[in-house]
Amino acid sequence: MPRTLIHATTKLGFLGAGQLARMSALQAFRFGIQVAVFSDRPEDEPVQFMTPFSYSGSFDSVDDMVAFAKTCDVVTLENEFISSDLLKQVQEQSGTPIFPSPASFALIENKLIEKETFEAAGIPVTPYKLVKSEEDLITFGDEYGWPFMLKSSKGGYDGYGNAIAKDLETAKEGFDKLGGIKGHDILAEAFVPFTKELAVQVARNETGTVVYPCCETVQENHINVAVVSPAPIDEKHQKRAQKLAIKAMEAIDGKGIFAFEFFLTDSGEILLNESAPRPHNSGHYTIEGCVTSQFENHVRSVLGLPLGSTQMNKPVAVMMNLLGTHNRPAKTDHISESLATENGHLHVYGKIQSKVGRKMAHYTLLGENGEDTFNKAKALTKGIEI
Amino acid sequence: MPRTLIHATTKLGFLGAGQLARMSALQAFRFGIQVAVFSDRPEDEPVQFMTPFSYSGSFDSVDDMVAFAKTCDVVTLENEFISSDLLKQVQEQSGTPIFPSPASFALIENKLIEKETFEAAGIPVTPYKLVKSEEDLITFGDEYGWPFMLKSSKGGYDGYGNAIAKDLETAKEGFDKLGGIKGHDILAEAFVPFTKELAVQVARNETGTVVYPCCETVQENHINVAVVSPAPIDEKHQKRAQKLAIKAMEAIDGKGIFAFEFFLTDSGEILLNESAPRPHNSGHYTIEGCVTSQFENHVRSVLGLPLGSTQMNKPVAVMMNLLGTHNRPAKTDHISESLATENGHLHVYGKIQSKVGRKMAHYTLLGENGEDTFNKAKALTKGIEI
Repeated sequence: MPRTLIHATTKLGFLGAGQLARMSALQAFRFGIQVAVFSDRPEDEPVQFMTPFSYSGSFDSVDDMVAFAKTCDVVTLENEFISSDLLKQVQEQSGTPIFPSPASFALIENKLIEKETFEAAGIPVTPYKLVKSEEDLITFGDEYGWPFMLKSSKGGYDGYGNAIAKDLETAKEGFDKLGGIKGHDILAEAFVPFTKELAVQVARNETGTVVYPCCETVQENHINVAVVSPAPIDEKHQKRAQKLAIKAMEAIDGKGIFAFEFFLTDSGEILLNESAPRPHNSGHYTIEGCVTSQFENHVRSVLGLPLGSTQMNKPVAVMMNLLGTHNRPAKTDHISESLATENGHLHVYGKIQSKVGRKMAHYTLLGENGEDTFNKAKALTKGIEI
Repeated sequence: MPRTLIHATTKLGFLGAGQLARMSALQAFRFGIQVAVFSDRPEDEPVQFMTPFSYSGSFDSVDDMVAFAKTCDVVTLENEFISSDLLKQVQEQSGTPIFPSPASFALIENKLIEKETFEAAGIPVTPYKLVKSEEDLITFGDEYGWPFMLKSSKGGYDGYGNAIAKDLETAKEGFDKLGGIKGHDILAEAFVPFTKELAVQVARNETGTVVYPCCETVQENHINVAVVSPAPIDEKHQKRAQKLAIKAMEAIDGKGIFAFEFFLTDSGEILLNESAPRPHNSGHYTIEGCVTSQFENHVRSVLGLPLGSTQMNKPVAVMMNLLGTHNRPAKTDHISESLATENGHLHVYGKIQSKVGRKMAHYTLLGENGEDTFNKAKALTKGIEI
């Protein structure tokens, strides 16, 4: 298939059927192509209401995924939990290209290899060490200070796969819990005193590379509640974060849309913290905030189309995550004021069941000024119940 | 169902499965609701690739449509070809509300009643008369001048249902062809010397009314090739057209999104030409051109949600219709330049088969200046083959 035109029967397959695939699928439809989706969940997932082409199977089964991939022209992912080795087999056996490529996945699926790869490319990362024993834990704590983080090298999601080592006792507990006791690779990572958590999205394919503004991810009680773009930081830090994100993307030959999360340290350093080979929560604001959204550039990049402009449409965009407030069949209530507000945009993910804390929806408000827009967006979403 | 919140299982049904339903469905998905579609076409239609809930049937069969409507919470339409009488029966027998309402449809489905309704509301329309005989044709031509238009009172689409009466012979031919000979109501309509063709979209429901800028629809060889918004006309004409559009909407108690097409005459008058109870080609530019698109306000209005701002995002938006250039399985080629252009947005409708002249896609370019943006959009789309 030539990759510079759009066939009506081109089918883009998503491994994963949640909100990230859903918002990408909406952009695929805008280009007039078809969407197929593969899910391992028993309940109906958001994308399954958006296509007649739904497949069920296991993310551990090459056969299941090959059967799916054979129905698609291109396959992409919305998470990083399928091993690169399986992805490689799926690509080879189905003959269907997968973007981001299994080779890129191989460089980031293991946090040890990820950090080594980025370090080798000259990208500053948070201090880390592979820990294998009680002695290693003590040595790391003594060198970089207590508390520190323990992370499973196999990664995690929203804090799973992490533990805090406050002292030797909790360090040992965390090590065992994360699988160190079974021989899994466990990383110790220093807590870096930071003033901001930042994120930058990069899209890249054979036609070129585009980088989004550096945004701030705002946490409350260790939960990402909001994103402000551009981040309220010096322009030199903005530029530095964007430059490092592009460098990281090139280091892994990333094709698709990736997000890179950084710390801005108290001393003014930008350290790469995590990478995600997919659309990212920190980039949801780009749907209305930028000329081309992360989801559109996701679709463009995996299809081989030229990438779109990442310019902002207004000086500031603020995205508020709307987490489940009840355990109940999903309904989104008390939304009139937020919907009626100029430049306020509500996105609901179509999940059937709401759970307290589950990502159910988000709200983006565009404005002229970061602080005002943030406060307004917060006030407008405070009463929403999901 | 309370109409101020969104249920994940709310199902919006579309009677019709073409590009207008498709672009509306994309907005329904954004609100996390489900989409069902009813089509009378044998081939797969654009929306059928976007939902597992596809129904086939006849637009003449109340039973078919009732069975469909019973699976939906709200039903809407993408065309005006189902008789209001059938729609009323479908609504009554299914218990599912239809927006726009059958009562609104009843006021515009017949061009004679439509014109009388709008005239009675004080809205200037093009001079017309019901013609029943050769004598009526002669009298009309002599009073309003030859040539004039003949229109089937049952309406039409893109010029179907119309005929030009150049002289008595062609008048009689047109009268017969449009069904006058079988007793159908035929309208004679004067050609009005106009400088511009204009259009205004209005969205309205129980929460309020919003009106879009007045845009210009640009024709080449009687085919609408482009839309420029705002129309390059005096502000007083802009305001007048918007005011008349709201008045027309109120005259028929329209709920949903409607488009009203006007002539700006040589003498500076604004005359209402046609109305459409649905998203309209003239409003495609609103997807990127306005804070809230016509499709989003379509969905909001039929769900009973507050309507969104119609402010423009940039001074000017130009939309180019991309018509089929070949008779072939659809593919959209030579799009790289248009995709790579800042603020250029390509929409492909997902039709499987391309035909010369068929509406297959559109391209919107935002800019600062009407003429420059129009020329640039034209140049960028000239080479696209579909």
